[in-house]
Amino acid sequence: MTSIQGFDVERARADTPGCAGVTHFNNAGSALPPAVVTDTVLEYLREEARVGGYEAADAASERLDAVYASVARLLNAEADDIAITDNATRSWQAIFYAIPFAPGDRILTSQSEYASNVISFLQLKRRTGVEVEVIGDDETGQLDVAALRRRVEGGNDVKLIAVSHVPTQGGLVNPAEEIGEVAERAGIPFLLDACQSAGQLDLDVRRLRCDALSATGRKYLRGPRGTGFLYVRPELRARLEPAMLDLHSARWDSPTEYVVDPTAKRFEVWERSSALVLGLGAAVDYALEWGLPAIDARVSGLARTLRERLGELARVEVHDQGARKCGIVTFSVKGTPSAEVKRTLTAAGINTSVSGSTSAQFDFTARKLPDLVRASVHYYNTEDEIDRLVREVAKL
Amino acid sequence: MTSIQGFDVERARADTPGCAGVTHFNNAGSALPPAVVTDTVLEYLREEARVGGYEAADAASERLDAVYASVARLLNAEADDIAITDNATRSWQAIFYAIPFAPGDRILTSQSEYASNVISFLQLKRRTGVEVEVIGDDETGQLDVAALRRRVEGGNDVKLIAVSHVPTQGGLVNPAEEIGEVAERAGIPFLLDACQSAGQLDLDVRRLRCDALSATGRKYLRGPRGTGFLYVRPELRARLEPAMLDLHSARWDSPTEYVVDPTAKRFEVWERSSALVLGLGAAVDYALEWGLPAIDARVSGLARTLRERLGELARVEVHDQGARKCGIVTFSVKGTPSAEVKRTLTAAGINTSVSGSTSAQFDFTARKLPDLVRASVHYYNTEDEIDRLVREVAKL
Repeated sequence: MTSIQGFDVERARADTPGCAGVTHFNNAGSALPPAVVTDTVLEYLREEARVGGYEAADAASERLDAVYASVARLLNAEADDIAITDNATRSWQAIFYAIPFAPGDRILTSQSEYASNVISFLQLKRRTGVEVEVIGDDETGQLDVAALRRRVEGGNDVKLIAVSHVPTQGGLVNPAEEIGEVAERAGIPFLLDACQSAGQLDLDVRRLRCDALSATGRKYLRGPRGTGFLYVRPELRARLEPAMLDLHSARWDSPTEYVVDPTAKRFEVWERSSALVLGLGAAVDYALEWGLPAIDARVSGLARTLRERLGELARVEVHDQGARKCGIVTFSVKGTPSAEVKRTLTAAGINTSVSGSTSAQFDFTARKLPDLVRASVHYYNTEDEIDRLVREVAKL
Repeated sequence: MTSIQGFDVERARADTPGCAGVTHFNNAGSALPPAVVTDTVLEYLREEARVGGYEAADAASERLDAVYASVARLLNAEADDIAITDNATRSWQAIFYAIPFAPGDRILTSQSEYASNVISFLQLKRRTGVEVEVIGDDETGQLDVAALRRRVEGGNDVKLIAVSHVPTQGGLVNPAEEIGEVAERAGIPFLLDACQSAGQLDLDVRRLRCDALSATGRKYLRGPRGTGFLYVRPELRARLEPAMLDLHSARWDSPTEYVVDPTAKRFEVWERSSALVLGLGAAVDYALEWGLPAIDARVSGLARTLRERLGELARVEVHDQGARKCGIVTFSVKGTPSAEVKRTLTAAGINTSVSGSTSAQFDFTARKLPDLVRASVHYYNTEDEIDRLVREVAKL
């Protein structure tokens, strides 16, 4: 048993069939799942084919319920505060579009904010007349908490603070706890997009003081594609009717009346793949076995090594910002378009991705960024794999 | 090779592993998939685990595109008019909530309408002040087309005609073509919920004259759970911005501007399970191999037999209505609650389900229906299986 930095990497790799064939640095896209996740999904799909889809779900009802408890444990929340969805976007949309904005209401967000969220802000600006204000970065590149505090204290027109914990285009970790403190003190709902942080950072909704948190299964949690979840604090939930309803989120009680579900299930839709939900549960349980603080230490340590090694290459510029950084590493190579860097790495069996301006216009515009190569490490990556990537980039 | 009514049932059953273990009359819940569907999904999930989720999707991009063509072929539509979603509800919601209703606008629907749809109507009534009008049944129990025509000609306040083709709680087939003709003549959008008809009836959006059609994969199409699709006519689509957007349905072009996708993909969300999408495609292709007219003839023929046989039992009442009936058979047994009938059948290895008032309040209230046992047949069911079900019911 080889233990690097106290982390049993050999076991992690043995648990991950994909490690044998590829060097996977696209964990911020979709990570390689551990065998237990794939096996859980496959076994359940076979069971559905054997006995019927509803019949399999009836038999697995306790296991399906347990997924809520697992996600709640991951977030230090209650199971009733969790909705299971198809992806992070559905989670985020379910809460965002439920908020009854009025003309002139302000939404505060970060410079590094994700495209899908900002497109939704801009849609509401057009539809309802809300205003979107970007809180700039401080000198470390994270959201400027002092500026946020000043803005919030300067008027009572702010209806929502919506921030991505970790952006799609860099290693930045935004100071969510401090943002949460400002929001809580001002009594403004705080929606934290944890799409890129869930599974690599220790998320505790009480410590984060967020009112809602959205996330996906497929990235750092190593769950199946097509899964996500949403936490909503009971006090916020009680005030919000979802933008869309069905016979699961609400009950049709009489010809003219419906009643909305009191739990966070009001943000769900009845039909879904139970196989994928169970796979998500297996992924969360597996992450909890390792422990999020241990995962965070291992992932951020490897990413630091990768940044240092890339930084030593003359033509390479590393673009990650923030006082605290995570597993996402972004860089560009002078004279070589990022799409070509990615293709070259793919040919060498190394998976990365490219982040472009349409994924984060505010940030790409403000920082005048070119398209970036994104190499996102996970705990099952090794220093040898980092060597390989750096060697390939050096050859360009 | 045994061919019953010209249909190669033996091949259908050999293609369906589940047939060996259960008698599945819950096809209106979730049908048993053919092996090709399960194998397609499993194989792709293994590939994702081997090479990474995004990398597998890149390699399968042509196969993923082909799913749109398959669904378009099923509906006699164009691929650009198809959105692939997570389920029928998501499909229906995507178009319904995109319509900009104003106070006093009328939505016309049927008495047999599905709970999720009516809950959405009632939500819009509360939120926007639309009015919901139920067009009653004619003497056969289907939507009264003459009454619909009179209502539409009586005023220009009708903004939408939204009808379920086949209700969840009975064998009724609503006269969609005739409804489409009325809608088209009046220039009113016609949204057809084909959740229960897709896969058992021959759907042709040109013949149906519907402007939008929503459906699921898991029921009569025998696809995976967690899949659905939506057809939207280009002329309607161009007028409607979806109620929610992300970076797939729209593109973030500059810090202050977004552009909505011109195709029906504007009603999709970026993230989803590619495995399930491919499974849906395999299911549609498999259905097309059999041919929908052949499937319809076989399914409605078996259902007719089941209704006749059940009707011969003294304590049994069959509740299906309509000039034309499909594969869904609903009945009740005097003196035995439907939940108990279902439990007894389950114990005998026969899958059915129970439909209650919360799934269709208008219909259950108007017809004073008790909870119903729903036995929904598919083409892989046999007359022997019908015998077994009838024998078990007779024993009660």
